[in-house]
Amino acid sequence: MIVDGRAITSEILARVRGKKTLTVRAVSVSPSPATESYLAIKASRAEDAGMELEVLQLLDSATTEEVIAAVREPGADAIIVQLPLPDGIDTQAVLDSIPLEKDADVLSRAAYARFENGEDGALLPPVVGAVREILERGGIEVPGKRAVVIGQGRLVGAPVALWLKQQGASVSVLTRESGDLAELKDADIIVSGAGVAGLIQPNHVRQGVALIDAGTSESSGAIVGDADPACAEVAALFTPVPGGVGPVAVACLFANAARLNHNPSEAL
Amino acid sequence: MIVDGRAITSEILARVRGKKTLTVRAVSVSPSPATESYLAIKASRAEDAGMELEVLQLLDSATTEEVIAAVREPGADAIIVQLPLPDGIDTQAVLDSIPLEKDADVLSRAAYARFENGEDGALLPPVVGAVREILERGGIEVPGKRAVVIGQGRLVGAPVALWLKQQGASVSVLTRESGDLAELKDADIIVSGAGVAGLIQPNHVRQGVALIDAGTSESSGAIVGDADPACAEVAALFTPVPGGVGPVAVACLFANAARLNHNPSEAL
Repeated sequence: MIVDGRAITSEILARVRGKKTLTVRAVSVSPSPATESYLAIKASRAEDAGMELEVLQLLDSATTEEVIAAVREPGADAIIVQLPLPDGIDTQAVLDSIPLEKDADVLSRAAYARFENGEDGALLPPVVGAVREILERGGIEVPGKRAVVIGQGRLVGAPVALWLKQQGASVSVLTRESGDLAELKDADIIVSGAGVAGLIQPNHVRQGVALIDAGTSESSGAIVGDADPACAEVAALFTPVPGGVGPVAVACLFANAARLNHNPSEAL
Repeated sequence: MIVDGRAITSEILARVRGKKTLTVRAVSVSPSPATESYLAIKASRAEDAGMELEVLQLLDSATTEEVIAAVREPGADAIIVQLPLPDGIDTQAVLDSIPLEKDADVLSRAAYARFENGEDGALLPPVVGAVREILERGGIEVPGKRAVVIGQGRLVGAPVALWLKQQGASVSVLTRESGDLAELKDADIIVSGAGVAGLIQPNHVRQGVALIDAGTSESSGAIVGDADPACAEVAALFTPVPGGVGPVAVACLFANAARLNHNPSEAL
């Protein structure tokens, strides 16, 4: 028998799986029951996305340098930092230590600047991705619309307001210090990230509004949003809490992790 | 419309591909037409295996330190060094700089020791993998057989002789300095890695031998093996050159790269 090495080669190579499971590292400091529960949910969603979530839990006594070392340790394909960090930690320095090519949450200044400047291939912060996904699926076009964003936090208000402007909406931002809830009445699109239970009542908004509730707070032991659930009867599109923006943002986070690790030429 | 965030989440996550294409880095110093051609073949086989071959070509003037830096640079999932390296380079130091978890060629002392000691989960050097694959497919059992290995090089003779002993064969090694071609006549299994064209003639071997020719040399511009092709008429199993052990060893190399990058719990 003359061995056909080329045929054997083709058979071996066809059963080799040249793919690797993506590992997303979550760095968490001083875990609380709430962050433990968020991380458990993320681990489960990572699995749904075919990825592995590797959690590095640091003690409350960790220094900024130790947190940065945990972020920078090689081996992960994407890195997320569970916020908030304890008071003694320099949060911005930690976020800026996430390498651009691993920053699935778009929280380092470098990654955020790419989003801000609308650079080609820049990732959207996960909550922005969720808002886009929800509006698109609801058939709601953004250009020319009047939008009101409540809050200007790093995770919701600031990036969502920026994105809505980029898309051609006229955007008002309401905060505790400035703005008037009466502005809600004129809005076509409302995105709320205040974290104040019952802040938005049905009489605050107009019939047919798209009301995206990205605020969460605790009320009598339950997680609730900024909008009274009765707003669903007035709104044309309404996202409940829980079960609305939150899980979609987590999905967008893992979709970002995948994008960071595929060839730009590959379709997503 | 009340948005069902969980349903959107499931849809997004189902289309996320949480897998990454494996990148194998080949470090090559002072390319010659021969090494360029080997690397082109490896690139093509990598593609067949769903991987990417990233070639780092260093100039002839590269120092040992520069070659080691190219090996150690982060980013690759497996690393191979194209041998031989130029005379000025400390080959063993370069091979030992390949991290154990990326050494698909099993050429660092650490990876080779795991193979030597028969450790659980240790990889086989690619030529050994090819010899095993070819014998298994040919239905040839090794325990108790008389084997002769020609040559004791790092890539063929030494690891193949070791493996045949591990499998329970009685093994003689022939080199230029010691041993007698007459020993071939008693062998059940011959593995040749001499690189001497026409070294083995049909009258040297017994009817029914398994003759695995892993030697290559150039003869009148063609790549030929150690065995005269007429040996195929005497042997029960014969591997031609080209098209025998060579391509199977390359396949085993990429199969090793895949194994290094999958969870031990995953079936291969």
